[in-house]
Amino acid sequence: MASIVPSRRVRRTPFTDGVTAQGVKGYTVYNRMLLATFFDSFHYDCAHLKEHVQVWDVSCERQIAVRGPDAKSLMQVLTPRDLRRMVVGQCMYIPVVDEQGGMLNDPVLVKLAEDEYWISIADSDLLLWVKAIVQGYDFNVEVWEPDVSPLAIQGPKADDLMARVFGEEIRDVRFFRYGKFQYQNRELVIARSGYSKQGGFEIYVDGSDIGMPLWDELFAAGEEFNVRAGCPNLIERIEGGLLSYGNDMTSENTPYECGLGKFCNLETAIGSIGRGALLPQALTGPSQMIRAIDIAGEATPVSDQAWPIVTEGGNKIGQVTSVTRSFEFNTNVAIGMVDASHWVDGTNVFVEAPDGRREAVVKEKFWI
Amino acid sequence: MASIVPSRRVRRTPFTDGVTAQGVKGYTVYNRMLLATFFDSFHYDCAHLKEHVQVWDVSCERQIAVRGPDAKSLMQVLTPRDLRRMVVGQCMYIPVVDEQGGMLNDPVLVKLAEDEYWISIADSDLLLWVKAIVQGYDFNVEVWEPDVSPLAIQGPKADDLMARVFGEEIRDVRFFRYGKFQYQNRELVIARSGYSKQGGFEIYVDGSDIGMPLWDELFAAGEEFNVRAGCPNLIERIEGGLLSYGNDMTSENTPYECGLGKFCNLETAIGSIGRGALLPQALTGPSQMIRAIDIAGEATPVSDQAWPIVTEGGNKIGQVTSVTRSFEFNTNVAIGMVDASHWVDGTNVFVEAPDGRREAVVKEKFWI
Repeated sequence: MASIVPSRRVRRTPFTDGVTAQGVKGYTVYNRMLLATFFDSFHYDCAHLKEHVQVWDVSCERQIAVRGPDAKSLMQVLTPRDLRRMVVGQCMYIPVVDEQGGMLNDPVLVKLAEDEYWISIADSDLLLWVKAIVQGYDFNVEVWEPDVSPLAIQGPKADDLMARVFGEEIRDVRFFRYGKFQYQNRELVIARSGYSKQGGFEIYVDGSDIGMPLWDELFAAGEEFNVRAGCPNLIERIEGGLLSYGNDMTSENTPYECGLGKFCNLETAIGSIGRGALLPQALTGPSQMIRAIDIAGEATPVSDQAWPIVTEGGNKIGQVTSVTRSFEFNTNVAIGMVDASHWVDGTNVFVEAPDGRREAVVKEKFWI
Repeated sequence: MASIVPSRRVRRTPFTDGVTAQGVKGYTVYNRMLLATFFDSFHYDCAHLKEHVQVWDVSCERQIAVRGPDAKSLMQVLTPRDLRRMVVGQCMYIPVVDEQGGMLNDPVLVKLAEDEYWISIADSDLLLWVKAIVQGYDFNVEVWEPDVSPLAIQGPKADDLMARVFGEEIRDVRFFRYGKFQYQNRELVIARSGYSKQGGFEIYVDGSDIGMPLWDELFAAGEEFNVRAGCPNLIERIEGGLLSYGNDMTSENTPYECGLGKFCNLETAIGSIGRGALLPQALTGPSQMIRAIDIAGEATPVSDQAWPIVTEGGNKIGQVTSVTRSFEFNTNVAIGMVDASHWVDGTNVFVEAPDGRREAVVKEKFWI
């Protein structure tokens, strides 16, 4: 694997010095910003995450700040999900689609006030989409990227570590809700959320200047909990069926295909972009869907391409979009898009891996 | 430096197998796609580029295809540059700005027909901006990202190599014009353009399937010209003053600050987005401007941060955004944004490099 060459264009984060000091071994680039991919090994990082607690620099989940009288109207134009009952203090996972119903991003929406939101984005410059929609529709809002960098605390000991730093009340924050907590005289939004199935929090670190002090304090307080630096873990996220925008779905896919139909409320989201294009799939369902794929054989190679899913006769009926070896489940765990003809739980298929054809089974449930 | 970890999200190109086989040593990510940064060393790659010919995989210059009755109107909304005299067969460098006049991208526009363009983009998801503008303004056009991947042939022997593969007529293509040339029964747009000052062409490879055959044919035909795989070279581009979006300018900067005022025609580009915000600077000029900076001392370290430019007393009067050692000019060449108070050619300033303060000189001309 080639090295990644530093440049200002591929942005550092407020925690990059900490990530480097903790011995990061692999990087990727996400929203034009550095994101660690592993520290020890995918396997070791995964096992540690499931047992202890990790601090993740996920600054690359950039925020799009929206504030103004039309903020609520804008948000309902941006997503087919019904936001009418969303309250201040709540987070919501929202599909954002284009006029053809294709996924542009799958962010978490954070409601800060009746007229103020953060859109915490996956890997696409959704800021440009939002700014241009505001421009075209003439919404009365301000839109900008604030200096806010999420730091995720994930793992079974996350509550214990966070209580040490932010006080016992942090334990009362419910899933996909946030509280505001003091740190160095600043009020930080801290939500119970994160890109793992091990539980934990995301601290929206407001101001790069307090990034490293907070990082250091979390590591000092976490010593007894065996804290380590971590990052979204390829194995754990595939086992848990956490989708990755750009890997498992692109603008070629509708929310229904991505299993996100439950987040589309077309009967109420009347003015949302893409509603018209999504209506037929809302009625008849999609013709392909994301599924768990259990792939037999030796540990699969690391992949940067979609692998065809085929019938015994070689007809393509889908593709594998993320795959890795799971040590806990002793198999190759994968996420793929599968045609309706083969998406029933337990269907036997084949996967054309770079090192040859393998037997595989389509599953409706992930490894959770 | 940490390795870059493969994933489908960080896209391969039609030429990635070729780039790998040629021994790429460094990568970056550009438009969510792999881009090589060096093969031997920045220095060796640079010296070779100036003497021979190189084949560059610049697939990451993705195309935004625009086609339809309103294509021309849309393009004039997207840029403050006057496009009225642009003809089919022409390429134009266009600033694209937001409603505040901030740079969103600095693409090359390729006019394919009266109702059809490619926007060949720098590093931001401009596709989302264009699609949302079309949505908001209700323009009658189709907008999509086609399977078109530029391959640049750069260096003093570029004409000789290209004539071997595409015929002698290629020599007649003028700067920032294109011709259409046959390859494997497909008609390819080939422009005299590219991100170096050494001359050459960009082949808009239309269809991933012909990528590696063309790559291989160029290397076979180029043997006598000492052809090598290359990529945009950090040293050569700074010496030549070629700006990099995300490094030397961001949405914080206007075209006037970037020295691109000559590409803004506010008196004619009446309906263009950002025109109102740009008018004051069009009249009075900007308060800071991009300049060449000559930095004294030993070879500078590789940088991923802007370095402050300061007065002797320590007042910040600008920042260095790209910097490297030039062996040809035996100094540290840099690009920076400098306040009006210090932008006159020959002004002595200081640069706060990570390894200490250095003397520097502001220059109006780059090293060309």
